Amino acid sequence: MTRVGTTSETNRMAGSDLFAVVRDELSTVETRLQSELQSDHGRVDEVVRHGYRLGGKRLRPALLLLAGKAVGPLNDAHETLAVVVEMIHTATLVHDDILDEADLRRHVDTINARWGNETSVLLGDFLFSHAFYLAATIGSADACQLIGKSTNRVCEGEMQQTLAEGDLEIGVEDYFSIIDAKTAELCSCCCHLGALYADADKATIEALASYGRNLGIAFQIADDLLDLCGNESTTGKSLGRDLAKRKMTLPLIHARDSRVDGPRQAFLALVDDKTDQQELIAALAESGSIDFARDTAEQYASQALSDIKNLEPSAAKTSLETLATFVVSRQR
Amino acid sequence: MTRVGTTSETNRMAGSDLFAVVRDELSTVETRLQSELQSDHGRVDEVVRHGYRLGGKRLRPALLLLAGKAVGPLNDAHETLAVVVEMIHTATLVHDDILDEADLRRHVDTINARWGNETSVLLGDFLFSHAFYLAATIGSADACQLIGKSTNRVCEGEMQQTLAEGDLEIGVEDYFSIIDAKTAELCSCCCHLGALYADADKATIEALASYGRNLGIAFQIADDLLDLCGNESTTGKSLGRDLAKRKMTLPLIHARDSRVDGPRQAFLALVDDKTDQQELIAALAESGSIDFARDTAEQYASQALSDIKNLEPSAAKTSLETLATFVVSRQR
Repeated sequence: MTRVGTTSETNRMAGSDLFAVVRDELSTVETRLQSELQSDHGRVDEVVRHGYRLGGKRLRPALLLLAGKAVGPLNDAHETLAVVVEMIHTATLVHDDILDEADLRRHVDTINARWGNETSVLLGDFLFSHAFYLAATIGSADACQLIGKSTNRVCEGEMQQTLAEGDLEIGVEDYFSIIDAKTAELCSCCCHLGALYADADKATIEALASYGRNLGIAFQIADDLLDLCGNESTTGKSLGRDLAKRKMTLPLIHARDSRVDGPRQAFLALVDDKTDQQELIAALAESGSIDFARDTAEQYASQALSDIKNLEPSAAKTSLETLATFVVSRQR
Repeated sequence: MTRVGTTSETNRMAGSDLFAVVRDELSTVETRLQSELQSDHGRVDEVVRHGYRLGGKRLRPALLLLAGKAVGPLNDAHETLAVVVEMIHTATLVHDDILDEADLRRHVDTINARWGNETSVLLGDFLFSHAFYLAATIGSADACQLIGKSTNRVCEGEMQQTLAEGDLEIGVEDYFSIIDAKTAELCSCCCHLGALYADADKATIEALASYGRNLGIAFQIADDLLDLCGNESTTGKSLGRDLAKRKMTLPLIHARDSRVDGPRQAFLALVDDKTDQQELIAALAESGSIDFARDTAEQYASQALSDIKNLEPSAAKTSLETLATFVVSRQR
């Protein structure tokens, strides 16, 4: 099922008023993204431009800009690095779509559905390498090192997840290790960079990096819940992709570990079979596993709020606070 | 056809005496590569370590070290950057194997034959991001920028090539544009970095960068010839992969353009059909297309020699000269 023609603008994070305090900067980021993603070679140019339309919710550049603005004035480095982190995130999305064999991402054709796996791999590589090049243009090896290390952890987390697919016995600590690496790491890096280039002191940088990490974990748990219980018309993604790949997420792990012996085996058989999603959801409800996952996400969001409680009051701080609440309650 | 168990050491460039003048440094590079390519997660660690075995001929780190040594003493930056360029090259090889659907690379299982495309994509990303992180550790944003930009051009060239597959009318200038980006760019970058971090003057850096570019073009033309006319037991690669993908390389383009009307169509039908490789090779010989490609490679090799003629005599300079001759005469 493939729908095309929806512009990227309509696919941004619902409630984008959240980012009002950095709206101008985000708009500059959009312009920069479009101007950077070009090629002199006609066929390549077409692919690279399509890549722009596949971008995410602009959560990561917004985090970087909000973290910066919460502690000091923004400068050119923030703007460039905001473009960099979105480019890296888009690269992981493009490669993720190969992994997931998904043909629909935010109601726009995925690259591999349109041009095939070969081109998807190369577009992702183009985005990664362009991002690293751009990071280096601000003239600081520190930024390159931070971004390189975080991206490396993201890849490691994705690999860990892929290699664990189909392992229905995966432990809860593995789940957290995976989402910490594949999602929270880059969110943390964004906040770290925002604070660092606003010349914040060490403690403030650490507080914001911790905020980003906790927010990222909350976001991913909520995202996994949406994948399991959401519906395609609001999320714009194929339904239950995690389940289709036998990827164990928090509600499934909780439901499994709430049962012993026969009921445990029966539950895992339901996961393994995955044809009756309604029955599975009923089983999750029975052990309170959906509520458990939602509560856990909320705890991480609370921790994120606590991380930044000592920041001076500002509109940017308020946005970061609202965002922490929003990521666990969003419907898309 | 998959063979396993051959150690990487036996798969290095034949005539590795070429690199004798930087043997100690290359040996340190091997140790560093092995120690960098590790993960704390068991399943991930296994994949990442296998990635080490898939490395190339170490041509790129050797170029970087030889270029540096030809103009000044080597230092820690050279060693780190030599590891970086080999890691980037390995990443492109891993992703190339996805593109080419090849199950054999240097007699070692390719990652995708063993773990599937998903893991191949992620291992390549891991290698890229780790390389960029490592480049940043030398504390110079210049190196990151040069490497990011070159890698970006490599990806662009690969994309250009992939999108041109099956286009039997591709022009000779497109062929050169593709090999310049996908191969010569990184070779040039290696020589540039080697000279730059040995504190060479601008003219010397440019001369060595030009040497690397011309050597890279000569190398790629020779590599394409080997793919067409070589044999699997010596190259360790599946035979005629370019042809199987209807990728037009220099001898094919020359043979096509040496013919008009009926003979031209007949020749392209032979390429399109690709079942009778002997007949195709005979057609190439008839128009002198194999000799033409070999002569062209030799001209680029001569240009490379000319680029470095003003360097002070040294063992490293002699190695660079010998290398330029070797790349066009090699049998594997």
